[in-house]
Amino acid sequence: MKALIYQGAGRMGWCDSPDPVAGDGESLVRVHHSGICGSDMHAFLGHDERRPAPLILGHEASGIVIDGPAQGQRVTINPLVTCGTCPACRSGRGNLCANRQILSMPPRQGAFAELVAVPHRNLVAVPDGVDLANAALCEPLACGWHAVRLGLNALGQIPDTLRCAVLGGGTIGVGAALALHAAGVAEITLVEPNPIRRHRLAAMPEFTTMGSDQLPDSSSDMVIDGVGHVATRAAACAAVRPGGAILHIGLGEATGGLDVRRMTLQEITFIGTYTYTDRDFRDTAQAIFDGRLGTLGWVDHRPLSDGPAAFDDIRAGRCAAPKIMLTP
Amino acid sequence: MKALIYQGAGRMGWCDSPDPVAGDGESLVRVHHSGICGSDMHAFLGHDERRPAPLILGHEASGIVIDGPAQGQRVTINPLVTCGTCPACRSGRGNLCANRQILSMPPRQGAFAELVAVPHRNLVAVPDGVDLANAALCEPLACGWHAVRLGLNALGQIPDTLRCAVLGGGTIGVGAALALHAAGVAEITLVEPNPIRRHRLAAMPEFTTMGSDQLPDSSSDMVIDGVGHVATRAAACAAVRPGGAILHIGLGEATGGLDVRRMTLQEITFIGTYTYTDRDFRDTAQAIFDGRLGTLGWVDHRPLSDGPAAFDDIRAGRCAAPKIMLTP
Repeated sequence: MKALIYQGAGRMGWCDSPDPVAGDGESLVRVHHSGICGSDMHAFLGHDERRPAPLILGHEASGIVIDGPAQGQRVTINPLVTCGTCPACRSGRGNLCANRQILSMPPRQGAFAELVAVPHRNLVAVPDGVDLANAALCEPLACGWHAVRLGLNALGQIPDTLRCAVLGGGTIGVGAALALHAAGVAEITLVEPNPIRRHRLAAMPEFTTMGSDQLPDSSSDMVIDGVGHVATRAAACAAVRPGGAILHIGLGEATGGLDVRRMTLQEITFIGTYTYTDRDFRDTAQAIFDGRLGTLGWVDHRPLSDGPAAFDDIRAGRCAAPKIMLTP
Repeated sequence: MKALIYQGAGRMGWCDSPDPVAGDGESLVRVHHSGICGSDMHAFLGHDERRPAPLILGHEASGIVIDGPAQGQRVTINPLVTCGTCPACRSGRGNLCANRQILSMPPRQGAFAELVAVPHRNLVAVPDGVDLANAALCEPLACGWHAVRLGLNALGQIPDTLRCAVLGGGTIGVGAALALHAAGVAEITLVEPNPIRRHRLAAMPEFTTMGSDQLPDSSSDMVIDGVGHVATRAAACAAVRPGGAILHIGLGEATGGLDVRRMTLQEITFIGTYTYTDRDFRDTAQAIFDGRLGTLGWVDHRPLSDGPAAFDDIRAGRCAAPKIMLTP
């Protein structure tokens, strides 16, 4: 098969690669759409020691099963492979599985390829009439969906009384804002510093978009940090109201930015959130299928063979769209 | 009256002072016991700009009402004076009142004195047969009680399945450990670096005491940081299990110590906690009255006139007891 292969810091090649082999309980999926995630960028830049070259990246994918009992089934792929038996899995928090694996991290190859091997239980059927491109957004949108669920649970308030801010207009942030909208939150502000991206997002009806530093202090019941840098964490600490919650999805700098004194005196709750549970993934898929996450028209599509240029464009800040989706 | 007056960084005097005047809705209380808090130490060292000299410190007190309708009533004092009308107060979170005041911070004088003026609604009656010295512990114990309530609520697990750690063997930490015990938590570890204090605490039956660095990594469902230093926050981040919670009461350094990357990848919840609600204060008082917080025999008593030496002893680490209580 052909695949986009990460070959070392800043180098990505469009190459021949052996077809993957489906193991026990796995199927081969012919990939139709595969999105570029911030973590793919992180690996591409050589910043993720868990993803050494050579490696096929990509973990946001949809396609059609080409073998086994589900042959011909249109599917979206949950890339998080869990053991199902550890205490976290047994308590319904498979995202914290002690033995978790994810497509695009050894020992599992990713989905920037014509074919990918996936456990049967990680496949979610996509109804006829739902675009497989939209279905491929399930993975990144599920991250925001999960964070919103945790945040609403922590606040214990009726969503339509809430004022919420989301930092970062990438897919994680946009997905979180759409999940807030789907949950019935009335006032949603998305903060995005890049003017070309902000311009593109400004047309979306589900939320208001503004630049960094425009968010009023102490104004938000919930702030979702979809970036995870020192600056966004500091902004989140300033923006959240006393007794409010910060949901932290981003994996930027490892430390710094939190105003712990204010968080203590004003009883701010900070919740780290990582991916999604299986239930969140399926709920997000259903919300996409039902149209509750909008028309999802904010995606750019390119051929997988043009992947190297897409990575360069994202790195240079030349992408207005929050997501570039690659098609083999 | 006589009072212990903070006169500037490191200086405390035993002086004559005008009697306080009870305002509308207030009573005068003759102080019987008044504990030294870490925040009094902080002010004494000149580190709290909200408490400028000259000032009467002290906000953990019990005594007897000497005027008004409740004259002769034995009481413990809730020192947190709230407005009752702001959104935080109306939502039952008076500790986050936008207009909150506290005894020992201007415009209110504190309780290291023979008399203190207190709003009627801040007085909790102490039953006959309950020692007023124990009743004066209500304020610091309520801080731990409040944190434990928030933590149990966040975890949503049955207390007797939980493994909890408390960092710091001052009254805040001991109070949190006792509140965990009262809530039915079976496995409670208190970490205290000072060997003379650790030795004294080792005799308490409600929890296990150990030194710093003895706490196993990733072992605790809940970690309560009763200190709030960079080092204790780092220890809390290492000790908490995936999906667990850190409750942060301490007001040491303003920033630093949190491993945000681990908190994100392992979905740690961090909750800043500040004082207590009125409900928490009354629940704590009732638990003291009922004996559910133990015998409270870990307090040293000294005359208020010896207050200056007590402050020096605490600063020098010469106090085995988690609390020194002063008696006018």
